[in-house]
Amino acid sequence: MTQRPAVLIMQRHLAPLSAFLEGAYDVYRFWEGPPIEAAHDIRALIVAGEFELDKSLIERLPNLSLIACFTAGYDGIDVEWCRARGLPVTHAPGVNHEDVADHAIGLILAARRQIAEGDRTIRAGGWSLSTRSITTSLSGQRLGIVGLGHIGEAVARRADVMRMNVRWWGPREKDASWPRTDTLIDLAQGSDILVVACRADENNRGLISAEVIEALGPSGLLVNVARGQLVDEDAVIAALKDGRLGGAALDVFVQEPTEAARWAGVPNTVLTPHTGGATTEAVQGMLMLLLQNLSAHFADEPLKTPVAD
Amino acid sequence: MTQRPAVLIMQRHLAPLSAFLEGAYDVYRFWEGPPIEAAHDIRALIVAGEFELDKSLIERLPNLSLIACFTAGYDGIDVEWCRARGLPVTHAPGVNHEDVADHAIGLILAARRQIAEGDRTIRAGGWSLSTRSITTSLSGQRLGIVGLGHIGEAVARRADVMRMNVRWWGPREKDASWPRTDTLIDLAQGSDILVVACRADENNRGLISAEVIEALGPSGLLVNVARGQLVDEDAVIAALKDGRLGGAALDVFVQEPTEAARWAGVPNTVLTPHTGGATTEAVQGMLMLLLQNLSAHFADEPLKTPVAD
Repeated sequence: MTQRPAVLIMQRHLAPLSAFLEGAYDVYRFWEGPPIEAAHDIRALIVAGEFELDKSLIERLPNLSLIACFTAGYDGIDVEWCRARGLPVTHAPGVNHEDVADHAIGLILAARRQIAEGDRTIRAGGWSLSTRSITTSLSGQRLGIVGLGHIGEAVARRADVMRMNVRWWGPREKDASWPRTDTLIDLAQGSDILVVACRADENNRGLISAEVIEALGPSGLLVNVARGQLVDEDAVIAALKDGRLGGAALDVFVQEPTEAARWAGVPNTVLTPHTGGATTEAVQGMLMLLLQNLSAHFADEPLKTPVAD
Repeated sequence: MTQRPAVLIMQRHLAPLSAFLEGAYDVYRFWEGPPIEAAHDIRALIVAGEFELDKSLIERLPNLSLIACFTAGYDGIDVEWCRARGLPVTHAPGVNHEDVADHAIGLILAARRQIAEGDRTIRAGGWSLSTRSITTSLSGQRLGIVGLGHIGEAVARRADVMRMNVRWWGPREKDASWPRTDTLIDLAQGSDILVVACRADENNRGLISAEVIEALGPSGLLVNVARGQLVDEDAVIAALKDGRLGGAALDVFVQEPTEAARWAGVPNTVLTPHTGGATTEAVQGMLMLLLQNLSAHFADEPLKTPVAD
């Protein structure tokens, strides 16, 4: 092993991190094909938690001692499996949930108040006075939040001031200012807008099933700012085409980037490229936590933000 | 005069009101060319307040006794001139300001968090992982509100929960939870986002001048949910093209409908077709006030919501 620990950045869009790491670490980039001899040196992986982490790669790195997620989410990582091998996992919690909540509100407004569509209409020369479009007020809309964690609570606070009626559902009861429904189906049935804001893991894949979508119904709006895998995306697309679901405003997708062709001819959608939590300020906060976790780890000090049990 | 009072609807997009008026009134529609003999019968005009009301028409209606604005705004009507002729003007205040504030927040998010642009990118097949876009967090942004009336206050309450720092300016000091700046230029200079939310009249045409736009600057966002005439729109377009203004998110325009060609090649804009206050719920509230004002007027009772002195 060299004096400076070596780290391997896994995803190309994390490349800008190199500049901040190179002062203290030897930095390899997975997509550049690191030299075979680096396998022995690499002691930490730096990953975006939403991408599946290849276990066979981990097994080829004998001195790996840390998985450092740049992100808050770590659904792509089998934390149990890592733990069993003595590999701690860190992430960046509590940094971007307010930004994600802002984005959720932005998606609701873009869809319900037809901001994205209005913009397209004007640019296409389609605005005429004889056809003024009337949209639905958010006042009194029933907002259902799936998962009342940091993001869900931040969405609820915003919805309160916008005069929506908030309820939520999650697998565990908790002390909260908003009522919890007994089941997810109950929440969907009693909501005009359903916002998916929960953590994704292997146990809740496809949580927003065809049945939940059906319960939300032909005037319901589905908003997802969590993870694509939480939603049966094929069922969403089919329901939108048939008019069995009113609309969908999605920042995350089963496969990212999602393909344009997949959404052609699917009505009443607003789509953004997973930018909900990606603000300059949040990225700076995530970078800070990453650097703190790395230096703590290599100094044999307690990790700043390990993934909790 | 007939037994049933006759009313004249001025703007074509108000045509759907006919159904609600015909039970009690003879209804003429201006764009259909009412018969010359109707001039004597017409006792009330029903108008959208943002359109200039033709004084020569009023002079040709000898028995006209009421100008009833369907809208909250009445900037197209010379209220003093009407008053001097004994013509009361009514409008629909306090009905849609929360919806307009929602729309303002939607425009801010669509612009700052690149929701409209992200949607375009995905549909054009332009999302790639190597170019993840990073946007600006709303947290800590300095929001300047021009005019702290019903709409301005509703915007401020929303901005508070989204962790923006609110200040405002208006010609008159008032008791408020947010600090007022000495001048509009001070407000623009100290703001990242400037929301125009004041009433428009003959005295504040072009209030958001080239100088104000310059003060807002190359990273500033101008949002207008009030009236197009409040803004020097040519100066906005020139400043956007030169990069002297960061962005503009506009629901109202000097001329409505605005032409697509006017905005072609103007960067960093989000445009909506004056839908800020046009929700189903607000329209119902405005209709209710219109009917109440008409029936009070023809029953010689006090008007429900006259334009205040």
